[in-house]
Amino acid sequence: MYRTHTCGALNIQDTGKEVTLAGWVQTIRKFGAITFVDLRDRYGITQLLFGEALNRELEMHPIGREYVLQAKGVVSERSNKNLNLPTGEIEVNVTSFTILNASATPPFTIQDDTDGGDDLRMKYRYLDLRRNMVKRNLELRYAVSRSARNYLHENGFMDIETPFLIKSTPEGARDFVVPSRMNTGQFYALPQSPQTFKQLLMVSGYDRYYQIVKCFRDEDLRADRQPEFTQIDCEMSFVEQKDILDMFEGLIKRIFKDVKGIDYTAAIEKISWDDAMWHYGNDKPDTRFNMQVANLKVPPHVFSDRRHTIPQTAIGASGFKVFQDAETILAIAVPGCSAYSRKQTDELTEWVKRPQIGMKGLVFIKYDTDGSIKSSIDKFFSPEQLKVIADAVKARPSDLILILAGDEERTRKAVSELRLEMGKRLGLRKENEFRLLWVLDFPLFEYDADQNRWVARHHPFTSPKPSDIDTMIHHSPVIKDPAKYLEHPYAVIKANAYDMVLNGNEIGGGSIRIFQRDLQEKMFSALGMSKEEAQYKFGFLLGAFEYGAPPHGGIAFGFDRLCAILGGSESIRDFIAFPKNNSGRDVMLDAPATIDEHQLAELSIGIRKEIK
Amino acid sequence: MYRTHTCGALNIQDTGKEVTLAGWVQTIRKFGAITFVDLRDRYGITQLLFGEALNRELEMHPIGREYVLQAKGVVSERSNKNLNLPTGEIEVNVTSFTILNASATPPFTIQDDTDGGDDLRMKYRYLDLRRNMVKRNLELRYAVSRSARNYLHENGFMDIETPFLIKSTPEGARDFVVPSRMNTGQFYALPQSPQTFKQLLMVSGYDRYYQIVKCFRDEDLRADRQPEFTQIDCEMSFVEQKDILDMFEGLIKRIFKDVKGIDYTAAIEKISWDDAMWHYGNDKPDTRFNMQVANLKVPPHVFSDRRHTIPQTAIGASGFKVFQDAETILAIAVPGCSAYSRKQTDELTEWVKRPQIGMKGLVFIKYDTDGSIKSSIDKFFSPEQLKVIADAVKARPSDLILILAGDEERTRKAVSELRLEMGKRLGLRKENEFRLLWVLDFPLFEYDADQNRWVARHHPFTSPKPSDIDTMIHHSPVIKDPAKYLEHPYAVIKANAYDMVLNGNEIGGGSIRIFQRDLQEKMFSALGMSKEEAQYKFGFLLGAFEYGAPPHGGIAFGFDRLCAILGGSESIRDFIAFPKNNSGRDVMLDAPATIDEHQLAELSIGIRKEIK
Repeated sequence: MYRTHTCGALNIQDTGKEVTLAGWVQTIRKFGAITFVDLRDRYGITQLLFGEALNRELEMHPIGREYVLQAKGVVSERSNKNLNLPTGEIEVNVTSFTILNASATPPFTIQDDTDGGDDLRMKYRYLDLRRNMVKRNLELRYAVSRSARNYLHENGFMDIETPFLIKSTPEGARDFVVPSRMNTGQFYALPQSPQTFKQLLMVSGYDRYYQIVKCFRDEDLRADRQPEFTQIDCEMSFVEQKDILDMFEGLIKRIFKDVKGIDYTAAIEKISWDDAMWHYGNDKPDTRFNMQVANLKVPPHVFSDRRHTIPQTAIGASGFKVFQDAETILAIAVPGCSAYSRKQTDELTEWVKRPQIGMKGLVFIKYDTDGSIKSSIDKFFSPEQLKVIADAVKARPSDLILILAGDEERTRKAVSELRLEMGKRLGLRKENEFRLLWVLDFPLFEYDADQNRWVARHHPFTSPKPSDIDTMIHHSPVIKDPAKYLEHPYAVIKANAYDMVLNGNEIGGGSIRIFQRDLQEKMFSALGMSKEEAQYKFGFLLGAFEYGAPPHGGIAFGFDRLCAILGGSESIRDFIAFPKNNSGRDVMLDAPATIDEHQLAELSIGIRKEIK
Repeated sequence: MYRTHTCGALNIQDTGKEVTLAGWVQTIRKFGAITFVDLRDRYGITQLLFGEALNRELEMHPIGREYVLQAKGVVSERSNKNLNLPTGEIEVNVTSFTILNASATPPFTIQDDTDGGDDLRMKYRYLDLRRNMVKRNLELRYAVSRSARNYLHENGFMDIETPFLIKSTPEGARDFVVPSRMNTGQFYALPQSPQTFKQLLMVSGYDRYYQIVKCFRDEDLRADRQPEFTQIDCEMSFVEQKDILDMFEGLIKRIFKDVKGIDYTAAIEKISWDDAMWHYGNDKPDTRFNMQVANLKVPPHVFSDRRHTIPQTAIGASGFKVFQDAETILAIAVPGCSAYSRKQTDELTEWVKRPQIGMKGLVFIKYDTDGSIKSSIDKFFSPEQLKVIADAVKARPSDLILILAGDEERTRKAVSELRLEMGKRLGLRKENEFRLLWVLDFPLFEYDADQNRWVARHHPFTSPKPSDIDTMIHHSPVIKDPAKYLEHPYAVIKANAYDMVLNGNEIGGGSIRIFQRDLQEKMFSALGMSKEEAQYKFGFLLGAFEYGAPPHGGIAFGFDRLCAILGGSESIRDFIAFPKNNSGRDVMLDAPATIDEHQLAELSIGIRKEIK
């Protein structure tokens, strides 16, 4: 062993001990004949003191930043103590040292506030990983996985590995494929998730399965997506939705306790998908703050069961064409902002007009602290009418009411974004506050206008809610009139699915699964799959359902994102040791890369030269 | 929840309780108006009693083998107790039941002694996994991973995930590759191991890393190899060989304790590679029994430091051409077998002549209990000469001496196989005895006659023994005269490498790594790699070594094999939930498979029609 102690271990109790440390040179400070070196390792930093006697040695073997040093010496009390450091009361009075390895000058500083840009740090990721901040992220990641494993183990879950070289059955996302050398012209696929395998394990009787496992999706990457990512993947048999919610509420609370020291004692709130969309415009609402959406107008057949709650009088006949023509009108009341200047409201109007939001404009009503009301639509609405609207929005004096009008889908999305933006501006989305939420009862299907058919919102193995199974079985999935797809009975079928949301991010999702062969076949056919195609792709699962499949369900957590949120970051990349960039490249390895003709020939594949 | 208890939970203490169980129907036995059903789940089997009152119900809803049943009833003491079962003192007197799912008749019986052949069980792996035996194997696997994780955690190791989509740098084995859609004509590779990444993590300062991780090798599969397999992969910084051996001796002993309840208190024996080859003909000797090999003749330049130990007189001038012509003569003394019949010795002769062993014949000497000596070479050797040989082999009266002569490589391999075979026949390789061994000081290089160059025996990152570094640096790797490659200084360079051997199986291997850029470059060049090629393939590692790489080393355990041996099986497949067959196919999924033209076009690849 090159060391007797780590650089984080020594303190005042160790004074007088002869020790050997090994680590990296963080800083070098010379004071006359004396040299101080901060030696760093994974565990901390210890100050080394090189006295006059070592000067000749230091001249012959000069040391620099990031050199790997082994130093022998005696622990001494420091005159100039640093009580912020666990080792700050001592230093090691060096008697001899060895340079274990030299270092070129790093391309950026190894510090929290490094001078290295993103690209440089990715290229030299092995140096970036030395920064305390990145180290803390990976430590947090390990702590989360350790906590999850312990909880799941204590609850009888078994870690069972599922294969990585499987069959390509693209549903939604694209598969990465792997050419098989031994089976010419054939390909394996990398799993998008172990979904079917964990269901097979339930059929096999392993009633509590888990795995922390890599998954792969060949998608066009958005800023915060990776082609390979990690899931905490779980499945249980003989359970209903409530059992799963309870079990994984326990898991997330355990993680909060173990990793953040937070006792999240409150029960996790539950909200239906309909309510989430209605009140927040979003199926993963950030519930750290209220500022709920007021629905002033919605189109027919959307939220049909709650349209009666809209006070129609508020936006009634006023001659204001924007409101009259809009399919949907939604509003929020932003507390304490009634005194916004023209400049400020103009800026907000520009904000909603950006392409990412895509609205044509923004209507505002200032409900002053004195009870007076001013608005951008004074021409069309009397103060009394404006007051009716303000009441409909449940605004209070001092609120700034923001109103968006337009298409249902875009407007709802926009009001959600606006709500989040205002929450952020008002400091209502606190980094150290964590608010969990279960979102339940998602629609089972989404309508695909291009193909005029249903697609699975979650995946084809999600069961309808028990009360909706009959609807699914007894109606044809065929949509006769595309214009009236919302009137099709499938449009209102709810999935027995659930998402766990943390601070406005989906961190996990799952469902009770279909476990009956006939219902699974009906689902495949509802998604436009022929019997032959279903058999080719999922014959093994349909087969398994013939031999005593138990009722089962599960959940998968996005491990990278969960870690990022717990670590207070927006970027999952900061929590992955060797991430890829937005083009799916590992710039450190320079991968992907060409392979040689010999490899291609062995795999019996060739590169197409033509442009796609 | 569909159940109040599992099928393994109830005992006599629960008598009188109203319970609900759910599970699979293992057996149905009718006795007049009464029906007994054994209900099975992951945790055990509980007997259900369906009384007369349920007959009508059972007629209307008949149940069969492997049906999924939910049964409500009262726990009662059994009249006919089965004390071999934890639940054998009770039964559940069923008051109502629900068939949760029916089952077709399984294609084979769900029992330890199933009637299903290998192919059928692989196709219906989800049913095979229900068998108690397979379940025990997967439970053992989970127990090993849990034990390893706990030990490594307690010793400061961090689980850090390394990427799966990396760069193809084939060295030895073939890579599986993954075409990149976004980078036309380029490919990722799946990792053969996280070797370079764990070394980068050491450079980054994460001084104790581990991962239980899938690895991929596109090799022609032997009976007991899988294209994807799992490693317990570990790396440490600031360590020498001894530190690593100590740490992982601790790991394996912990696993023995946790998983098998075995206190393996003895220190693990260490043997050099030279000694292993000399005494056992094999670099992973089974040391559960002795029966060491006697070296009667070896060629020059092989084991040159110990040729003087051979008693030349024993096989000296005798006119026996087989011995005279042989490069190598090796023998073992098989205890208690001097009375073997002609038929038995003939059978052994046939055994060594099989193509797998490939010897031309077998010489035997029977050293009778009365001290008399008979042999198959009486024509050539006097009894006195035979006694000299017997003494050289350290034979004792009642031993059967078996002598093989031929080429060094083949003969050594053959004597090793013969030793193992005789050990097996004599019952010396006991399934419940576990004997660990460290094999040290492997040769760093192997000679590749086809290319007349050196290849890395372990991998290109293995450091030479400290005492051999100068030899490597100061000599050219070029082999001027291929016939005399054994005289090249590189032929005797030893690696700072170690294998852990359990009962004659290599279960883990590793090395102290090169951590200096110049030595690593020298290694690449010694392996015939140009500077450009080394830079293209491993530039990131060479680069990392410039910025303060610490001394480091590690080990990787073959997790599948370790589990198989601990489970008393020869086949790793029995310890993998969803294994592939010997053609690399998953017969359950029917993968690999063709993918559609659309997928190929998106990836810009095509299938070559021509024959390879």
